[in-house]
Parts: sequence; C-alpha cells; structure tokens
Amino acid sequence: MRAIEIAQPGRPEVLRIAERPVPQPGPGEVLVRVRAFGVNRPDVLQRRGLYPPPPGASDIPGLEICGDIVAGDAADTGLRIGDIVCALVTGGGYAEYCVVPAGQCLPLPSGLGVEQGAALPETVFTVWHNVFERGRLQPGEVLLVQGGSSGIGTTAIQLAVAHGARVIVTAGSEAKCAACLALGAEHAIDYHRQDFVEAVSEHTGGRGADVILDMVAGDYVAREQRCLAEDGRLVIIAVQGGIRSEFDAGLLMRKRQVVTGSTLRARSVAFKSAVARSLRETAWPWIEQGRMRPVIDAVFDATDVVQAHERMDSGQHIGKIVLRWT
Amino acid sequence: MRAIEIAQPGRPEVLRIAERPVPQPGPGEVLVRVRAFGVNRPDVLQRRGLYPPPPGASDIPGLEICGDIVAGDAADTGLRIGDIVCALVTGGGYAEYCVVPAGQCLPLPSGLGVEQGAALPETVFTVWHNVFERGRLQPGEVLLVQGGSSGIGTTAIQLAVAHGARVIVTAGSEAKCAACLALGAEHAIDYHRQDFVEAVSEHTGGRGADVILDMVAGDYVAREQRCLAEDGRLVIIAVQGGIRSEFDAGLLMRKRQVVTGSTLRARSVAFKSAVARSLRETAWPWIEQGRMRPVIDAVFDATDVVQAHERMDSGQHIGKIVLRWT
Repeated sequence: MRAIEIAQPGRPEVLRIAERPVPQPGPGEVLVRVRAFGVNRPDVLQRRGLYPPPPGASDIPGLEICGDIVAGDAADTGLRIGDIVCALVTGGGYAEYCVVPAGQCLPLPSGLGVEQGAALPETVFTVWHNVFERGRLQPGEVLLVQGGSSGIGTTAIQLAVAHGARVIVTAGSEAKCAACLALGAEHAIDYHRQDFVEAVSEHTGGRGADVILDMVAGDYVAREQRCLAEDGRLVIIAVQGGIRSEFDAGLLMRKRQVVTGSTLRARSVAFKSAVARSLRETAWPWIEQGRMRPVIDAVFDATDVVQAHERMDSGQHIGKIVLRWT
Repeated sequence: MRAIEIAQPGRPEVLRIAERPVPQPGPGEVLVRVRAFGVNRPDVLQRRGLYPPPPGASDIPGLEICGDIVAGDAADTGLRIGDIVCALVTGGGYAEYCVVPAGQCLPLPSGLGVEQGAALPETVFTVWHNVFERGRLQPGEVLLVQGGSSGIGTTAIQLAVAHGARVIVTAGSEAKCAACLALGAEHAIDYHRQDFVEAVSEHTGGRGADVILDMVAGDYVAREQRCLAEDGRLVIIAVQGGIRSEFDAGLLMRKRQVVTGSTLRARSVAFKSAVARSLRETAWPWIEQGRMRPVIDAVFDATDVVQAHERMDSGQHIGKIVLRWT
C-alpha cells in the first residue's frame, strides 16, 4: 500500500509517499481501507521531530481516518465489514490502509461524505472529553474557545451551542471571527485588536467564562484566570505558547477555579472506546440533525500532502484540512 | 458580654477583652453561649490586618465555637435550645455569645468535651470539602498532606485513614512526624531534612500522590506537580508560600492533573449547611466510634488569648489551640 512517511524531521517537503505492507488487524481490531484522513497539529509537530509517536504506534503520522472496514472483528460495536466508519487512530492514518481498535470506530453519519467523516474524529473526541467530561460545561454556561476558527475551535463552538451553552471565541482575523459567529458563537474577539481578558469580562458583565478551552498555555494562563468565573474550569489541550505557566493561587482559591488539561493520543483503547460510545449517543444525532457540521478548509489529494501541510503551517486555514486517496 | 477585639493590626498584644452587646439571632439563626472556641490561622492574619472579615461578618475574630443553644430557631436541623453544638461561624467566635445559622451547627459528638468540640468545625469542614468533595479522595488512594501536624493536617490524616485512604505527610520536626504517624499516616517526611518530591515519589514507587492538600502554594506548586500521580488533584487551601505559582502545562496535560483550591469563610450558608449535613452522616459517626479525635495542642483561658496567639505564632504547636470561657 501507499503511505506517507516522514523522511527526516523538518519542513513539509520531508513528507513523501512510500510503499509499506498492509497492516494486519489483531483481536478486537479492524482493518480500514482509508478513503480520507485529516491533518492535525500533532502531525505537524511529529513531522518537525517534536512529538514522537507513543510506544507501539506506527511511525506513519495521522490520527483520524474515514473509510470502509475490509477485515477484522467489530462484533462488539455493531459495525460490520463494508461499513464506512470514522475512526480515531494512534498513528498510521496517512496510508491507504490502517488498523484500528473497533471501539474507536463510529459509523459515518448519514448525509456526510468521507472527507467530512475524516474531519470529525480528532476534534470531536478532543472537544467531547475536554469540554463536556473534564470541563463539565452545562447548558446556559459560557464557554470561551481560544482559536475558535481552528478545527478544534469550530467543533467546540457547534457542540457547545447544540448542548445549550453560550460561546465566546478568540480568533486572529476579521474573517475568522465572522466564521465563528456564523457557527453560533455569540461573541468573537479578534486577539490582534483587543485584549481578551477585558473583552470576556465586559461581555459577561464581569462574571467571566465558566469553561475556557485553551491551546496556548504559557502566559495565557494567568490572563485566562482573570476572566474565568467563580467555579470556572480552565482546560488546556495544547501548549502553543510554551509549557511554563504562572497563576495566582489566591485568586484560584477565592474563585474556586480548576486548572486541568489532557492529551488524547496516549490514552487507552478502553478510554477512547468509552468516548466513542458517548459521542454516538449524543454528538452523532446532533450531526445527523444538521446541528453540527465539520468545517472543512480544504481537501487535497493525498499525493499533495506537502501542500496540505504548507497550508496548515500558514495558519490561514479556517476549519479542517483533509487529504483523500483517489 | 465579654468579647476579644483587635485594638489595631499587630502582634498578639493587640488582642484585648472588651464589652459588647449580646448579638440577636435572625430567622434561621441560633444564639450560642460560647463555652470554648478554636484559634485558626485566618484569625492570626486578621489580627495582623491581612485578612479583613467578609462583608456582613463581625469585626470580632473567631471561626469556630462550641457551646449551648440559648435562643433562636433551629427547627430544620433537629437541634433544640439547650443542646450543646459545634458551629462554624463567619466571625465573632471570640466572644461569650455568638449568632450562627442553624445549618452550620452540629451536635457535640458523644464522648467529647466542649474544648474538643471547639477544635472540630474549621478543620472538619475544610478537610471534608477540599479532600473529599473537591479532591474526590477514594479509598486506597494516596493523600499527601503538607503540614501534617497542624489542626488541618491532623484532621486530614484521621479522616482520610477512616475513609480507607493511605496518607503521607510532611512536617517540620521529628516530634511532629511522630505525631502524624501515631494518627495513622503511613509515611512522614521531615521537610527540613528531605526533599518531599523525592520522598513521595520513592514511597509510591514513582507513582506519586493522588491528592495533595496544600497550604503553601508559591514555589511548592511546581514541586507538587512532580510528585502528583496521573489524574492527581492538587487542592490549595492557603498560600503561606505566596500567591505567585508556576506550573508545567505540558506535565499537567500528560498526567491529566487538576489544580484547584477554595476558601471556606466567604461561602454561602447553604453551602456550609450542606457540608454540615454530609459531616453528620459520615465524619460524625467516625468521631463517635473513636476513629477520629481532634488533636489538641493546648487549652488556654479566654483571658489568656495573647499567650494562645503567641503559641500559634511560634509554630511549635501540634494540633489545635483552644480557648475557653471560665
């Protein structure tokens, strides 16, 4: 089969098509013929040599795929050979075939194409766990999404709105802000033009956000604390601003704030399968009702993976970048 | 009535006996004739002018009392006039009479004297909420208590052990370590002689503590993070090391740690009453079964309040300092 490997750490040009053996599914696993796969920031970090795959994972990048089950054992999930599924994988998604634990597969929602299906897993698993399970966002509460126009951001906006929450976003341009508002955010802050601490405080009448979904960390944490409500939860899912963060322990106590975070990739199959079951019960119906749609920035042919990564690196995209095998 | 007031911010000598009117209970409140009352670190901060009473609270210090109900309305709680109760108060405890919301009263556990009863409320309410509710300590998990020989510490050790958890403490001398071990801690670290990060890691086989109860904050936070287990919870209840704290957001994510904290004094009557109900169902039977006993360092006559505060300031005490009216 064809797969995309990282020749050496570096710029997008290090990605190249290679010939690899088709992987074989073990017990509880299925083999998926990959029709489309999503590009995620961890793929970029892996390409740059900054994010080694976890033990046991393929050296081929790629965390989410959409395609049909061609072999293996999916009995526990009600899925069968021939079904088109969206799947969260621990690596190896940039290939024509990929092995995945059956519990991490979800049926392609009705009305969606394979490119849309490939744009779902990484963001919906991440948002579901971090915003709803870890952050315990409740209907009527205010969610602040840092980077609302990213793949994670566009998913977070739509899922939170479907859940009955109010959403504020930050984004880096007027066009990105407009895209977030169109998805249901009630307020969008262009972080190049306005301080988000002030803007969130003002928009919430001084109360602050109940949950903040943060991909920045670094010096954002202390600022986020100042616009986080009493009993507010700050959930960190990436450290684009660096890992060293400061906070005010007195303010944390007085407002009973919670600072937490998680990574998805290294979690167990059991954990990911449990998230998949929750998603199938809640988010999947929302998707099939049209209340949530993956926002796709661009679809590239898999052989144009270098351009796809250049697009990702540019930071110009709104929503997901997807690759497809033709 | 006699009460102890703070003449001006300063050293223990600023505390003086004064004559004040007996306060009158409002709806849902009871008047307690105070037999004994506990000394707490916030009293010291208030004496030094660093911790103003919250709006509506008495200027008289004192957060916990034990005495008999002499007037008021306690119908909802099953308590009656003449009952001896332990009560958490928002201030005004350093007096012969004190008004308290009925829901914040608990019956004096059988077998305990009024000095012991006065030593309970502040520590049991604080430990219950922060270790069990906020920190969600489970049986079999490891709790690290910073300052195990303090009033909070000795209560945390005993409640956690009664709950079936394992307890590690830090303390500042060999005698304090021995006192903690006698209360059921399985390991005590003299922080003057050993780095607690290494000691906790070693004692837990590299796993770390599941919950840390911290009164230090400041530069302790980053160190605590390094001996906090996967899914571990760091709960900050005081900032004796300063409010500016640093942490590693990458480590927080990888281990899915939770950093949180709270203050008790400013919480609502409804919140405190809910904690009281939980305590009555769980910790009160433990106390009556002898599985938890307030550890009392010294009992002073209320007129010797200056000496009591000097003892508190010395840091030599193990357990609670209590004052009584005679």
